[in-house]
Amino acid sequence: MNTISLLTDFGLVDHFVGVMKGVILKINPAASVVDICNEVKPQGIFDAAFLLRNSYAYFPNGTVHLVVVDPGVGTERKAVIVKTKNYFFVGPDNGVLDLALKEEKPTKIIHITNDKYFLKPVSDTFHGRDIFAPVAAYLSKGKSLSNFGKKIGFLKNLEFPDLCYDEKKLKGEVVYIDRFGNLITNIDSRALEKFIKGNKFIIKISGCTLDKLSRGYSEAGTDAPLALIGSFGFLEVSVNIGSASAYFSARKGTAVEVEIL
Amino acid sequence: MNTISLLTDFGLVDHFVGVMKGVILKINPAASVVDICNEVKPQGIFDAAFLLRNSYAYFPNGTVHLVVVDPGVGTERKAVIVKTKNYFFVGPDNGVLDLALKEEKPTKIIHITNDKYFLKPVSDTFHGRDIFAPVAAYLSKGKSLSNFGKKIGFLKNLEFPDLCYDEKKLKGEVVYIDRFGNLITNIDSRALEKFIKGNKFIIKISGCTLDKLSRGYSEAGTDAPLALIGSFGFLEVSVNIGSASAYFSARKGTAVEVEIL
Amino acid sequence: MNTISLLTDFGLVDHFVGVMKGVILKINPAASVVDICNEVKPQGIFDAAFLLRNSYAYFPNGTVHLVVVDPGVGTERKAVIVKTKNYFFVGPDNGVLDLALKEEKPTKIIHITNDKYFLKPVSDTFHGRDIFAPVAAYLSKGKSLSNFGKKIGFLKNLEFPDLCYDEKKLKGEVVYIDRFGNLITNIDSRALEKFIKGNKFIIKISGCTLDKLSRGYSEAGTDAPLALIGSFGFLEVSVNIGSASAYFSARKGTAVEVEIL
Repeated sequence: MNTISLLTDFGLVDHFVGVMKGVILKINPAASVVDICNEVKPQGIFDAAFLLRNSYAYFPNGTVHLVVVDPGVGTERKAVIVKTKNYFFVGPDNGVLDLALKEEKPTKIIHITNDKYFLKPVSDTFHGRDIFAPVAAYLSKGKSLSNFGKKIGFLKNLEFPDLCYDEKKLKGEVVYIDRFGNLITNIDSRALEKFIKGNKFIIKISGCTLDKLSRGYSEAGTDAPLALIGSFGFLEVSVNIGSASAYFSARKGTAVEVEIL
Repeated sequence: MNTISLLTDFGLVDHFVGVMKGVILKINPAASVVDICNEVKPQGIFDAAFLLRNSYAYFPNGTVHLVVVDPGVGTERKAVIVKTKNYFFVGPDNGVLDLALKEEKPTKIIHITNDKYFLKPVSDTFHGRDIFAPVAAYLSKGKSLSNFGKKIGFLKNLEFPDLCYDEKKLKGEVVYIDRFGNLITNIDSRALEKFIKGNKFIIKISGCTLDKLSRGYSEAGTDAPLALIGSFGFLEVSVNIGSASAYFSARKGTAVEVEIL
Repeated sequence: MNTISLLTDFGLVDHFVGVMKGVILKINPAASVVDICNEVKPQGIFDAAFLLRNSYAYFPNGTVHLVVVDPGVGTERKAVIVKTKNYFFVGPDNGVLDLALKEEKPTKIIHITNDKYFLKPVSDTFHGRDIFAPVAAYLSKGKSLSNFGKKIGFLKNLEFPDLCYDEKKLKGEVVYIDRFGNLITNIDSRALEKFIKGNKFIIKISGCTLDKLSRGYSEAGTDAPLALIGSFGFLEVSVNIGSASAYFSARKGTAVEVEIL
C-alpha cells in the first residue's frame, strides 16, 4: 500500500508538485509517488475527474489516489478520504472524485479534520502541500481512516453531460480532447451498443458523416477522419496521423450524433 | 540519505533529465530521484534559486538537492557541494544556491575537483550528466565530502531586489510569476508585518489599490483581484479563478507598494 | 533488473504515461520507472530514435527501455523485445529502436505474441498500456524472453540522412533541435575528425561561416554563434545564452557544411 498517484493542476513550471512529493517522502520514505497528470488546466475539475475515472483502476490495489484540483482552497469545501473496495482517494470534495466513484463505489467517506496530520502552519492557498500530501502519506503508511476525522455520508456530484435519445438518434457531445486532438465523447461503448443493436448507423459531427466504427486509427488513410471506441471506453472521433480537433474545428461541447439508418 | 531532488532548466522535451536519472541509478540503484522542477526557463538562475528556497526544506533530512541551471558550463565557474545542517546541495557556483543558503547556512563548502567521481569523457556542455549527477549519486550513497575536493570559504551571491522604505511606504516588486498568474513579490511576511504594525494600509499595483490582506483566493469574487501572504511566504497579488499577471499586465519587476494610511 | 525507462509521444497533458506506470507497478511493485522523455512530438519516430540512441547507455545494465511511439498501433506492425549485451528494448518494430541498436547490436529479437502477458481486453489504440507496459513489467521481473513469442531475425530500419563527401567538403544537415535551440547535425565526431585530419576548416550554415570548433558554449560572446561537438557526440551549432535555431532560422534538414581550406 505504498503507491500514491498524483493528479493535479499544479503544472510543471513551478515547484508545487515537487514540494508535495518532498512532503510525502519525509513522512513515508517508502512511498512510490506516480504522476497520473499534473498538467490539468488550472481549476479544471471536470478534466481531472475524467482522467481519474480512466486511470485509477490500472494502479495496484491499495494505491492512494491523491487528487488536488482545488479552486475552493481555503473555503468551507471539505477535504476528504474515500475508501473503495480497492483504493483510497484523497482530495477536495468538489466533484473531482465523482466519475471514478461512479465506477467503484465508496465504502467509507471521511471528512479530514484532524490537524495532527497536517503540515503546520497550514496555509490558505496550498492545501496540496499542507493537508492532502501529508494525509496521503500517512494513509500510505497504513494509518487507519478513523484517525483523520469523522465519517460522512455524501460527496458533491459532478455534472456530466447527459445523452439525449430519440428512436433514431443518440445525441452526445465532445467532453475531452487529448494531446493528439482525438475527440472523446460522452457516449460510452455500452450505451452505443445498446442503441445501435446491430443496425446500420452513421455518426455525424460538424456537418460531416462517418459511416462505421473503425478498430484502429490506421483503418483510415493518413489525415482522414474515423470513429472508434477509444482507450477511454467512449466513442471517439479521430484523424489518422492528424488532429480531429483541428480537422473538425471541434471543442468541448461540440455535438456528436449517432443516427440509425 | 537516498533522496535526490532535481531542479534544472533542461526541460522535458529532450532526454537530458532522463539521462541524469539514468546516471544516478547506475551509481546508486537505491536512490529515489524527485523532480522539483525541470521547466525553469533556460539560464534562469534567479527563478531556480527562488524555487529552491521555497522547496528544499520540505524534503527529508539528508536529501541531496541537485540543481543544474548552468549557463557557464565549461567555464571556470566552480562546481560545488554545500553541506547544511539538514541537507546537501550540489550545483554550479553561480548564485543558484544562494537564496536557500540564506535560510539554512552552509556548514561546509567543497569545490568539486576529483574526477574519480565524474563520468568520462567529461563533456564541456553537459556537466549535469558528467559531473553533477554522478557526484550527487555518490553523495547519496554516503561517500564523504572530503573525497570530492577541497574546502572553500565563499559562494557567489545572487542579486535579490532590495525593499525600499520610507516612513509611510514600503516599495517592493514582482520577482516570480507562477503558472496560475499569481504575482509573488519580494516582500516577505515578516518584513510586511513589521512595517504595517497593525496600522491600516493599502497595496498598490499598476494603478490599482487593494485595501486588505485576504486569507484565501476565494475571499474575492471570481475574476476579482486580491492580496495575500501566499504559500511562498511572500506578499502575493492574485485574481480568484484567474490570472493576476494578465489582469494587471504585470511582469517581473512590476512595482508593488504598501502604503500606511 | 528493475529499472524501466520510458520514451513516448504520449505527452504530459493526459493520463497515458501515468496509466502505463500504474500497469507496470501492478505487475512489478519493485520496478523503478524513469522517464527519458514523454514529449516526443506525436508520431515522431525519428526524434524518439535519436533520443534513445543518446540515452540508453547511461542507464544501469539490465534496464528495460520501453519505447512507445507507435503511429501504426492496431496494424500488422510487430511488437518486439530486443535483447542486447546490456539492455532490453521493448517497442513497436517501426524503426524507433534502430539507431540505438546500431550502437549496441541485438543478440536476440522476439516477436511479442503471447497474450498471456497482455492486459485484457487489448485495445486497438493504446498498446502502450495493454501490451508494451505489461511486457516490460514482466521482463523487469526476470520473466525469460522465450515466454513472450518466437525469435525473429530482422527489424525495420530507420532512414538516417547520409553524409555527402567530396575531397574538400563534408555535407550534413540538422537532424534534431533541442529545447535550447541547439542545432544537432548528423556529422558525428569520428566522421568529422577523420575528414578534417588536422587541416584548417570552416563550417557553413545558412550563409554564415564559423571558423573553428569551440569547446564550450561560453567561448563565444553572449548571443554569438559557435560550433562544437555537443553532448550527443555530433557536430552542433549553438548560440551562447541564445537559440541557434532562431539565430539561423534553421530547422530540421537545414544544410551544414564542413569545408577544408
